[in-house]
Amino acid sequence: MEYSDRISTLQPSAIREILKVTQDKSVISFAAGNPDPESFPARDMAEIASGLFRESSSDALQYGVSEGYTPLRELTSERIKRKYNIGRDSDDLIITSGGQQVIEMTAKVFLNEGDAVLCETPSFIGALNAFRSYNANLVGIPMDDFGMDPDALEAALKKTPRVKLIYTIPTFQNPSGITMSLKRRERLIELSEKYDVYIIEDNPYFELRFDGEFVPTIKSLDSTGRVIYAGSYSKVLSPGIRIGYACARRDIIQKLTVAKQVSDVHTNLFFQMLAAEYLKTRDIDAHISKIREIYRKKSSLMCFEMDKNFGSRVGYTRPQGGLFIWCKLPDGYDGMEFCRICAASKVAAVPGSAFSVDENEIVPAFRLNFSLPTEEQIKTGISRMSEALSEYLK
Amino acid sequence: MEYSDRISTLQPSAIREILKVTQDKSVISFAAGNPDPESFPARDMAEIASGLFRESSSDALQYGVSEGYTPLRELTSERIKRKYNIGRDSDDLIITSGGQQVIEMTAKVFLNEGDAVLCETPSFIGALNAFRSYNANLVGIPMDDFGMDPDALEAALKKTPRVKLIYTIPTFQNPSGITMSLKRRERLIELSEKYDVYIIEDNPYFELRFDGEFVPTIKSLDSTGRVIYAGSYSKVLSPGIRIGYACARRDIIQKLTVAKQVSDVHTNLFFQMLAAEYLKTRDIDAHISKIREIYRKKSSLMCFEMDKNFGSRVGYTRPQGGLFIWCKLPDGYDGMEFCRICAASKVAAVPGSAFSVDENEIVPAFRLNFSLPTEEQIKTGISRMSEALSEYLK
Repeated sequence: MEYSDRISTLQPSAIREILKVTQDKSVISFAAGNPDPESFPARDMAEIASGLFRESSSDALQYGVSEGYTPLRELTSERIKRKYNIGRDSDDLIITSGGQQVIEMTAKVFLNEGDAVLCETPSFIGALNAFRSYNANLVGIPMDDFGMDPDALEAALKKTPRVKLIYTIPTFQNPSGITMSLKRRERLIELSEKYDVYIIEDNPYFELRFDGEFVPTIKSLDSTGRVIYAGSYSKVLSPGIRIGYACARRDIIQKLTVAKQVSDVHTNLFFQMLAAEYLKTRDIDAHISKIREIYRKKSSLMCFEMDKNFGSRVGYTRPQGGLFIWCKLPDGYDGMEFCRICAASKVAAVPGSAFSVDENEIVPAFRLNFSLPTEEQIKTGISRMSEALSEYLK
Repeated sequence: MEYSDRISTLQPSAIREILKVTQDKSVISFAAGNPDPESFPARDMAEIASGLFRESSSDALQYGVSEGYTPLRELTSERIKRKYNIGRDSDDLIITSGGQQVIEMTAKVFLNEGDAVLCETPSFIGALNAFRSYNANLVGIPMDDFGMDPDALEAALKKTPRVKLIYTIPTFQNPSGITMSLKRRERLIELSEKYDVYIIEDNPYFELRFDGEFVPTIKSLDSTGRVIYAGSYSKVLSPGIRIGYACARRDIIQKLTVAKQVSDVHTNLFFQMLAAEYLKTRDIDAHISKIREIYRKKSSLMCFEMDKNFGSRVGYTRPQGGLFIWCKLPDGYDGMEFCRICAASKVAAVPGSAFSVDENEIVPAFRLNFSLPTEEQIKTGISRMSEALSEYLK
């Protein structure tokens, strides 16, 4: 019995073992990537759903087209163009089953076996594994406070054979929280043209900004059609409905549509229609403002508790948005070991190595999520973590 | 700009051009694969949805696990075991975004580039393209009235290098309508063991039997864990919700779960919870009986109209279930050419070549769908088709 090479490289990791403790109700979890359920516009969604069942169930429960429900495609295109200048006349948009599917299908559409993908390190494991599942050669590019190091990126573009894609989460990066500067974004576009490669801009968090200045998307700077923009409704409506989208050059969207046909035919049509009706009849911008306030408060509380409990033992940058805080242990310590001790103390975090291109790398860092835990859980959890820290650093 | 080899092989086909006419409202379409919307239990679903929004929206709209919602997995496993003896102690079950995703992920999990997949010819184009999207070597096995020819299958197993999978739709096959006999199913299992290959049993139609005798699933005959069973709620609840499942050996389900994580994280959780509640509190078997009656009536009417209008010019086997009738033109004629003439006469069917491993093959056949059109449309459509037939055969 032999599985494919591609799937054999994706082994269950040590990290999953640590995360298993979160099934224990007495464990406080900062390990998730979940939005706060308070951020779901559940009442509006319920009203719209009830109308859909009453008036359009024959359509909403029937097969749909692979490109996605036309009104949702149009309303999404119109909104991201008007608000963020995303999308050009030569672009098109496809609805996907979450942002993850954009990554997976883009890998399918672009990568031959052994083609290289350059990505930030650390980066989002779900995306890295999607590339691995097409036997890509993953090359991590280090970051500083302004995003991917452009010189390291250019050096990698020069020396790595068959680079096809650059994968970036430019805003409130998962896990580092870093936002790429405008200058770096412009440089990235230049490099993609110079070396004839494509960019996946994975941007699920950018509307969750509660501090600092908006930075234009890479896609809005794209004049030659080299950016595949991956958007998501997971953090502004809800993740359980699995609705994301890709905006890219028309010929790329056509290829993604072919990939979509073989992947899952189309995305849940009922919730596509529901999302379209929400965009049409509700004020999503006002709703997103409310989400920002929830996260501003929780993030602030977590920072306050960390400062109080951790002191200078843990370094971090105060987040301006997103869902995560990236925490650094003193040099020479191991985030994995620390997270094990935390788990024993009934508080869960994700070790930094979970986000490395090389999962066996020792990373003196861990990721905390502030969106899901309640205020009480943040207080108690950080206090437990502080004790674990004392035990580990002693 | 180069796309991957895998996606470059999937070109838009001449068939899609023909099917475009179905967007014209004056065209009667027998080209779809859609269930009758009357078969959706929309009122029950609306009630359950309303309860979910009222009592469980925080969970139903949140991220879920990749394996699927546990109660739906359990209720599905229990039902297919109790009614059809599908699943052994060493098996597990994963919820997928429709049956299509089982095929795509099984391809990902099993196939290295160039590995061979044996399939019925004609077969379902969505599955064939899923295999093609992993650069599989597709080999078509001819069928007779009892399913795949076992001698041709064994010959192909002997001479084809690196066969990994056999793909079959054993019951009410799409497009041929053929149901594989029990004897052939037993032989298939034997051959899979003898040649160390795996079988995908794609079985979305088998509960839509309105005539003839139930034939046990291949999976229920599987004692060595070589069958990956692909099930679907598309034809018994509704396709727009995109809920299917795979039942297979536990280690295979674990690999499929890894593939699911990178594909779309998980299937729409709201509708997974809705389906679970439906299975728990409603009588799905009574509901399926009603669907069978709808299709028995429509199928019967279509056969009656064909007999009356086509006479002996078109050969077909009266269906015992499923959604389709496979129609044969006299030898030497071309289904593609005939479907073009039909389209000009405002009636749509799918030419047989759409289901060939080699799409350029000339196939003197076409597929009719009887589940979606109304009775009036069946009468008018078959009459238009009869005129097209007179024009083509004259």
